[in-house]
Amino acid sequence: MTELEGLREQLRNFSAARDWDQFHSPKNLAMALSVEAGELLEVFQWLTEEQSRSLEPKAQAAVSDEIADVLLYLIRLGDQLGIDPVAAAHRKIVENAQKYPADKARGNSKKYTEL
Amino acid sequence: MTELEGLREQLRNFSAARDWDQFHSPKNLAMALSVEAGELLEVFQWLTEEQSRSLEPKAQAAVSDEIADVLLYLIRLGDQLGIDPVAAAHRKIVENAQKYPADKARGNSKKYTEL
Amino acid sequence: MTELEGLREQLRNFSAARDWDQFHSPKNLAMALSVEAGELLEVFQWLTEEQSRSLEPKAQAAVSDEIADVLLYLIRLGDQLGIDPVAAAHRKIVENAQKYPADKARGNSKKYTEL
Amino acid sequence: MTELEGLREQLRNFSAARDWDQFHSPKNLAMALSVEAGELLEVFQWLTEEQSRSLEPKAQAAVSDEIADVLLYLIRLGDQLGIDPVAAAHRKIVENAQKYPADKARGNSKKYTEL
Repeated sequence: MTELEGLREQLRNFSAARDWDQFHSPKNLAMALSVEAGELLEVFQWLTEEQSRSLEPKAQAAVSDEIADVLLYLIRLGDQLGIDPVAAAHRKIVENAQKYPADKARGNSKKYTEL
Repeated sequence: MTELEGLREQLRNFSAARDWDQFHSPKNLAMALSVEAGELLEVFQWLTEEQSRSLEPKAQAAVSDEIADVLLYLIRLGDQLGIDPVAAAHRKIVENAQKYPADKARGNSKKYTEL
Repeated sequence: MTELEGLREQLRNFSAARDWDQFHSPKNLAMALSVEAGELLEVFQWLTEEQSRSLEPKAQAAVSDEIADVLLYLIRLGDQLGIDPVAAAHRKIVENAQKYPADKARGNSKKYTEL
Repeated sequence: MTELEGLREQLRNFSAARDWDQFHSPKNLAMALSVEAGELLEVFQWLTEEQSRSLEPKAQAAVSDEIADVLLYLIRLGDQLGIDPVAAAHRKIVENAQKYPADKARGNSKKYTEL
C-alpha cells in the first residue's frame, strides 16, 4: 500500500466511525478543500514574497497544518470519485511538459496559451 | 523514494529547466493552489450533491485534472518550505481524532468548537 | 456621492490613518478578498442547499460579516486600480444577456460555451 | 433606489427570465462567488506586487471583469438571504475601527488578535 493509499484508508475508517459519508459528497468536499486553500492563503496575504520564503515558526506551523488539510480533502475527494491523485498528477506533468517546452517557457511566467 | 517524493523530484527538475524558481515563492504557490481549488469548485457549483456523486465523463476528467493541479502545487509548496505533506497529514489525523471523538461527532457536521 | 463611493472614501481614510497603503497592493488585496470568499464558503460547506436557504441566526450573522468583508476588499481593490465596480457590473450584465439568451438558457445551468 | 438596489433588481429579472432561481441557493451562490474570486486571483498569481500596481491593459480588463462577477454574485447572495451588503459593510467598518486602533495598527499588518 502506498502512502496516499494508507491515508485514504484511515480517512475511510474515520468517516465511517462518525457516519460522515452523508456529508462527504464530492460537491461538499470540493468546498471544504477550497476553504482550506483559503486558510492557507491567509498566512501569506500580507507577507512579501521574500518574507514568505522564510516563515516565522508560528506561520510555518500554520502552513503545515493547512497543507495537511488540503491533502486530506484531496485524497477523500479522489476516493469518492474513484480518482487516483498521484496517477492524475503524473499525467498532468506529461501534459505540462508539452504545453511548456523548456526553451519557450524559460524565465517566463506566461500561460501556455500566450507563449 | 515514495510516490510524493518522486513527484517532488520531477517538479524540481521541471522548474529548474525553465528557470521558474524565481516565480515559485511560497506566497505565489499558495495563490496558484487556491486558483486551482477554485477551478475544482467550478465543476461542482451548479450540481446537486446527488449529481456530484456520479459525474458525467467530461466533468470527471475535469475534476481529475484539477485534483492533479492542486496536488502538484501542494507538493511544490511543501518542498519550498521543507514541509512533508504526508507527515503533516498523519499528524492532522491524530489531532482530528481528538477533536472529533466518534461518539460525540457521529452523524454531526458541527465544528469541534461547537460539539 | 454614491453609497460605494462613500465606502471607498472611508476605506481610504482608514488605510491612510494606519499607514496600510504599503500592504494594499492589488495582488495582496486580491488574496485578501479570496480569503474572505473562503470564509464565506465555510459557513455553507456542510449544509444542504435547502438548509442554506434559511440559515440559523448565527450562520446568518456570519454570512453578513463575510459579505461585508468581500465588499470592502472589492471596493478597495477597485480603488487601487481605478476600476468602478458598479460600472463594471453594468457592463457585465449586458454581456451576460448576450451570452445567455433567455430562450436558450431557460432552466439550464450550463456554461454559455456549451449552450 | 440606490445603485446596488438597481443591480439587485436587474439580477432578479435576469434570473426569473431564465428560471435560474432553482440553481441560486445561497450555498451555490457562495461557491460561484468563490470561483470568481479564484479567477481574480489568477490574474495576479505570478506578478510581483509592484507589477500588480500598474497592470497591462489585458490584465486590467480581466480584473475589471472579475470584480464585476464577484459583485454580482455578492448582491445576488445578499438578496437571497435578505442581507444588505452596504449596511453590513458599514457595520464592519465600525467594528474594524475598534479592532484596529490607529495608534496600535500603524504600519503593522498583524491580525487584531496579535496586536
